[in-house]
Amino acid sequence: MLNEYNVGVLGATGAVGQEMLNCLVERGFPFKTVKALASERSAGTKIDFDGGEIVVERVGPDSFKGLDLAIFSAGAKASAEYAPIAAKSGCPVIDNSSNWRMDPRVPLIIPEVNPGALKRHKGIIANPNCSTIQMLVALKPIYDAVGIKRIVVATYQSVSGSGYKGIEELADQSRNLLSGQDAVNSVYPHRVAFNCLPHIDVFLDNGYTKEEMKMANETVKIFDDQNVKVSATCVRVPVFFGHSEAIWIETGRPISPDAARELLNRAPGILVVDDPKANRYPLASESVSRDEVFVGRLRADPSCENGLAMWVVADNVRKGAATNAVEIAELMIRDPQLMKTDWTD
Amino acid sequence: MLNEYNVGVLGATGAVGQEMLNCLVERGFPFKTVKALASERSAGTKIDFDGGEIVVERVGPDSFKGLDLAIFSAGAKASAEYAPIAAKSGCPVIDNSSNWRMDPRVPLIIPEVNPGALKRHKGIIANPNCSTIQMLVALKPIYDAVGIKRIVVATYQSVSGSGYKGIEELADQSRNLLSGQDAVNSVYPHRVAFNCLPHIDVFLDNGYTKEEMKMANETVKIFDDQNVKVSATCVRVPVFFGHSEAIWIETGRPISPDAARELLNRAPGILVVDDPKANRYPLASESVSRDEVFVGRLRADPSCENGLAMWVVADNVRKGAATNAVEIAELMIRDPQLMKTDWTD
Repeated sequence: MLNEYNVGVLGATGAVGQEMLNCLVERGFPFKTVKALASERSAGTKIDFDGGEIVVERVGPDSFKGLDLAIFSAGAKASAEYAPIAAKSGCPVIDNSSNWRMDPRVPLIIPEVNPGALKRHKGIIANPNCSTIQMLVALKPIYDAVGIKRIVVATYQSVSGSGYKGIEELADQSRNLLSGQDAVNSVYPHRVAFNCLPHIDVFLDNGYTKEEMKMANETVKIFDDQNVKVSATCVRVPVFFGHSEAIWIETGRPISPDAARELLNRAPGILVVDDPKANRYPLASESVSRDEVFVGRLRADPSCENGLAMWVVADNVRKGAATNAVEIAELMIRDPQLMKTDWTD
Repeated sequence: MLNEYNVGVLGATGAVGQEMLNCLVERGFPFKTVKALASERSAGTKIDFDGGEIVVERVGPDSFKGLDLAIFSAGAKASAEYAPIAAKSGCPVIDNSSNWRMDPRVPLIIPEVNPGALKRHKGIIANPNCSTIQMLVALKPIYDAVGIKRIVVATYQSVSGSGYKGIEELADQSRNLLSGQDAVNSVYPHRVAFNCLPHIDVFLDNGYTKEEMKMANETVKIFDDQNVKVSATCVRVPVFFGHSEAIWIETGRPISPDAARELLNRAPGILVVDDPKANRYPLASESVSRDEVFVGRLRADPSCENGLAMWVVADNVRKGAATNAVEIAELMIRDPQLMKTDWTD
């Protein structure tokens, strides 16, 4: 493939943005140029890229002229402002924020799960929430085989989901507590070191957090199935990288754990690690910098009809964000139709 | 009440044993003497007790003569050997190990949940698993009001559940990793610092761990209800003290979160902390050295009929072990009949 694409990365200095730049290089994405964009605060910063250095440019209304494709990870506000500007100037945007995910004009894509929905895009494509991505990659083969009626999920989410500032807060607090000093918190509402916070994103009137409702609503949109019900409890844990999830599903028709394991073994993007008696199961520590979704502890759930339980882990910054976005870009450049935009406000 | 009881504590040098000694003093248990017992390894150690010091004695067949009551937290093997000896010599035993819990001759007691079952004891009374205790204290008021058909639970269990050695391993590994050194593991099969291990106790043929099946089997025994189904995923997290649990239940009849909250507010042993928009919910960090079970994040689970979700936290070494055992002892001394033993092998 010719290196012919001029690619923009908005939010290039953030934890996910940095990993997006890494992914473009590591995965051999055929870029001609890469333009690193960020807010005024980070403009002028030099960052390592592809063996050299690039200077981060301040994003503005004219930033997307001449770009063939842009990947955003700069938060909901920047996405709301700049994604339509880019799309209208002919540059399709793959956006990692939550801003556009539930917009009916915007497909919400996991390449292993619903690549076909890409066809409906008008210039903005949304990357799902990190916790949703790894869950649905793991569940898709089972969904296709026997259907899924209900999902119950408890998450164990790492602080890298909050970017560099989350990583720093966990490191600082851990160091302080281990040396007998007080832990100061600014990123999280309570101490995260040596603690578990059942609070990610803001609380809604129904008692769930926005993060928990993202897992429910995004699942319905991605599976394009109003009948799949999800109840999530999302928890921040003192882990730097890698989200873990305890998942229970109720399938439409019966499936044995062995049959499910066999399906997952053959599915794209999944690595089954499931030999518990040999102490082999997915671990956040072993997911770091990996692009696969790790699935293990597959077992029957005898507490309901057609129940299955499992443990799913992925690097939230990679497959949960950067890798998934670059994989969407890889799908798009294979089909010139998908590189066109048709956005109107 | 007269201070008339000669009390033995087996496993007095362990994390739970130490807390049992603290609880006896803090709660004003009317002991006349307290004999600290342990294996040969710890015999001779001097430990602080009630403003003074006591010397740990090596446990042996004659250790229980003259004792009115013994509390054990020395592991399954020591319990298997010494509990019958104590009971046969007229000293009832409250045992914190898993050894006797499912024995039909042995009642499994949570004072807030099934105090009446104490009447059936023959000399050995079992303290449930830490994760079971806090779950059932939280669920009992709802169970009594509307019944519970199914429980799904994901745990976030602290390393103090493995005793002092677990605490040391987490501290050592955390310090090493934060200073760029390797983490060495000996207590857990993988690094626990900045990681989540879906592995507590050994794996069984059905794919669940023993810890997970304890939560299922002990619930059936304590509620004395063969129809309550439980599926658990038990996870060790890098927290020193306090177990957290994400729990979903399906009740027999409908109950609103508000009605459930009201029931819990009036129930013994429970502190409802449930004002999420003000960042108030149960936290492991706030459960330390507390005897209450903290319940919050009560909300409807719309993914099933009559579903309720919640977040339950307790100090696993206190209410999950030491406090519960001492509370059982408090019930027993109120009724002279309960101080009698009638054990035959």
